[in-house]
Amino acid sequence: MLAEIITVGDELLLGQTIDTNSAWMGEHLALSGIAVDRISTISDAPNALVDALDLALKSVDLVLITGGLGPTLDDRTKQVLSDYFDTPLVQHDGVLANITRWFAHRGLPMLPSNVEQALLPEACEMLPNPLGTAQGMWFGVKGGHQVVVSMPGVPYEMKGIMTDEVIPRLQDRFALPTRYHRTILTQGVGESFMSEHVATWEEGLAARQVSLAYLPAPGQVRVRLSSEGENQEEVVRRVEQEVVAFKALCEHWIVSEREGESVATALTRELISSGKTLALAESCTGGAIASSMTAIPGSSACFLGGVVAYANEVKVDLLGVSKDVIEAHGAVSEEVVKEMAQGVRRRMAADYALATSGVAGPGGGTKEKPVGTVWMALAGPDGVQARVLNFGQSRSRNIEKARLECQAWLLRELREDKR
Amino acid sequence: MLAEIITVGDELLLGQTIDTNSAWMGEHLALSGIAVDRISTISDAPNALVDALDLALKSVDLVLITGGLGPTLDDRTKQVLSDYFDTPLVQHDGVLANITRWFAHRGLPMLPSNVEQALLPEACEMLPNPLGTAQGMWFGVKGGHQVVVSMPGVPYEMKGIMTDEVIPRLQDRFALPTRYHRTILTQGVGESFMSEHVATWEEGLAARQVSLAYLPAPGQVRVRLSSEGENQEEVVRRVEQEVVAFKALCEHWIVSEREGESVATALTRELISSGKTLALAESCTGGAIASSMTAIPGSSACFLGGVVAYANEVKVDLLGVSKDVIEAHGAVSEEVVKEMAQGVRRRMAADYALATSGVAGPGGGTKEKPVGTVWMALAGPDGVQARVLNFGQSRSRNIEKARLECQAWLLRELREDKR
Repeated sequence: MLAEIITVGDELLLGQTIDTNSAWMGEHLALSGIAVDRISTISDAPNALVDALDLALKSVDLVLITGGLGPTLDDRTKQVLSDYFDTPLVQHDGVLANITRWFAHRGLPMLPSNVEQALLPEACEMLPNPLGTAQGMWFGVKGGHQVVVSMPGVPYEMKGIMTDEVIPRLQDRFALPTRYHRTILTQGVGESFMSEHVATWEEGLAARQVSLAYLPAPGQVRVRLSSEGENQEEVVRRVEQEVVAFKALCEHWIVSEREGESVATALTRELISSGKTLALAESCTGGAIASSMTAIPGSSACFLGGVVAYANEVKVDLLGVSKDVIEAHGAVSEEVVKEMAQGVRRRMAADYALATSGVAGPGGGTKEKPVGTVWMALAGPDGVQARVLNFGQSRSRNIEKARLECQAWLLRELREDKR
Repeated sequence: MLAEIITVGDELLLGQTIDTNSAWMGEHLALSGIAVDRISTISDAPNALVDALDLALKSVDLVLITGGLGPTLDDRTKQVLSDYFDTPLVQHDGVLANITRWFAHRGLPMLPSNVEQALLPEACEMLPNPLGTAQGMWFGVKGGHQVVVSMPGVPYEMKGIMTDEVIPRLQDRFALPTRYHRTILTQGVGESFMSEHVATWEEGLAARQVSLAYLPAPGQVRVRLSSEGENQEEVVRRVEQEVVAFKALCEHWIVSEREGESVATALTRELISSGKTLALAESCTGGAIASSMTAIPGSSACFLGGVVAYANEVKVDLLGVSKDVIEAHGAVSEEVVKEMAQGVRRRMAADYALATSGVAGPGGGTKEKPVGTVWMALAGPDGVQARVLNFGQSRSRNIEKARLECQAWLLRELREDKR
């Protein structure tokens, strides 16, 4: 099955909004065995949508439209579709009730323009949107052999309708191949190095009907193994077999086997399940590790707190780092980062502590300690260890990579302790 | 002048990469008086690009292509353009030298596929790319009345070529309207409220030939005033006149008048210029304020550090908050947040301190302190003040809005102190 995505809105063409919907839809369609042939972004002008529909219906089976369903004057998608398919706008069962409930739940007054949102083209199937006031629409074309779907442009509303309504209907009504995939997050290895490391195994994958994709993520590599076929059991078995082989080859770098899980979430889960607590002493990462931990709901069960020790006086006064050690070795050193980790671990009575001290850049580099040099320490019940890495020239990447490196380090430590 | 953007790459259709290039290009073209009519995202297959070019050249004056210029087998844009414009690939002056220099500078070996990148279609003007190995290409069509430009898909390479080569050439060769704009960042007011507040002024803008756009940014409103015409001086005068009027109406909410400046950057600049230092005590924001400050190069000139006091023990032991006060009022209270701010200001010997304590959610809410309740305190030479706000249900938005609110609060305080 071949699809085209049409995103509607002047704000997209003017660059006021970045289109994240298309990538999400492309990924989820691909996982259902539907290939996206083209994404067209067009203006709010009615004839732009008519032209785009004419063009798409010449070459694809499925057209997914997002945007232009709001209550304001520039939202014209519904009227254009009603004209395009020559079907009047009528009241659909339950839609007005949905919208009324939506407003009542939020204690907001319902305006006449919202009541109008309850009218939908007669010929469409209504795709309920519990998260907003604009419902989705499904139009069968050529006796249902082709489909045009219209959804709101608000990302979480679109995602809800796609997941709950569109994909199940497509699976139901069309002979889509059975697909199965697993995504594995790794850290500490580049894409090229990993690809070389697993080359022999990777070369045989195609013959075993499994495909491999390296998905980009800063400082990490996400690996997706997928397969499709007729028989569900067979497809699952194929992929799971390769997951076992991949894990044997790359075990040390694997952070999470759960779909979409981040390093911070995997670490939080591991800390909570082992009943351990964490404290942080951050210099060059400047709160980025703390911020990524506390972004996770429930992280207070394992995360006690941290000290962002940017000034040397803060390292001395709040973390108990020795002034002499800073003078002798400099703030970016093995000695200082170890004292930072031990200091915060003691002061917060934590099981583990992570510390960073480095030259994030762009300024501050020296010949001995160039921009990108980051000392990291991990203190735990068995003492303190330190490592140094050089990440590169970009301040934001240095901070991000140091954060991921620290979190993955503790994650590995916790897993090894369990054995 | 009407433009179409064509972005090339299977990774975009598969949703492995979000297309941020188009929005950037759309914004910068609009600022030069060029309207984007459509954005088409297509696969790496050569015929997809041929079809897209045929279609675009029927309706627009300018076609901007990104992607497909890398050294690997799936990068075919250059060959397709060479065939499309029936012009052979030849060596252009200086291109091989550029590429050789690029590799030498990085100490990387140059592969045969990179040498091949020095070949370009004979009929194109080469658009130099100092940041990468794939050069940009400019093709004149119909005696130069239409233009097709091809650029690499790497965002910073594309941005460099657009800024240094494409936009200046367009301004040079086509009669583009003179355009001028100013962007002003505000915080602490919603778009609808602001729009109502400035309604009378806004209504008259069109007659005065200035247009107003509200640009979305979480917790903030960015306002852009722009105008176009024949006479540069006249256009600038028009916009600057409305900037004065807008400032008079919205002064209290204005954070920055500098193009693209964030709240954190404006605060850092203000702290440094007043020679003041900042310390933080973060509970519910969990390091987000610290992280946004330390993301800014040079922030160590004013930012001393912070304590992420997630556990109550950390509030007591590291910030000196009284245990009794926590027991009597709860951690999310005026009393505690004030003690946090004063504690960290004293311990880090800072001029100013900001503190947060709230219920970020989704759990932890009570009837008295529902999810979204955030107490904030600002301590300075004249004592300590506290405020409470309720932001809503989303954890990430609560953290982000509390961060912006705190930073804008101190920024206003510093500006008032100057008067």
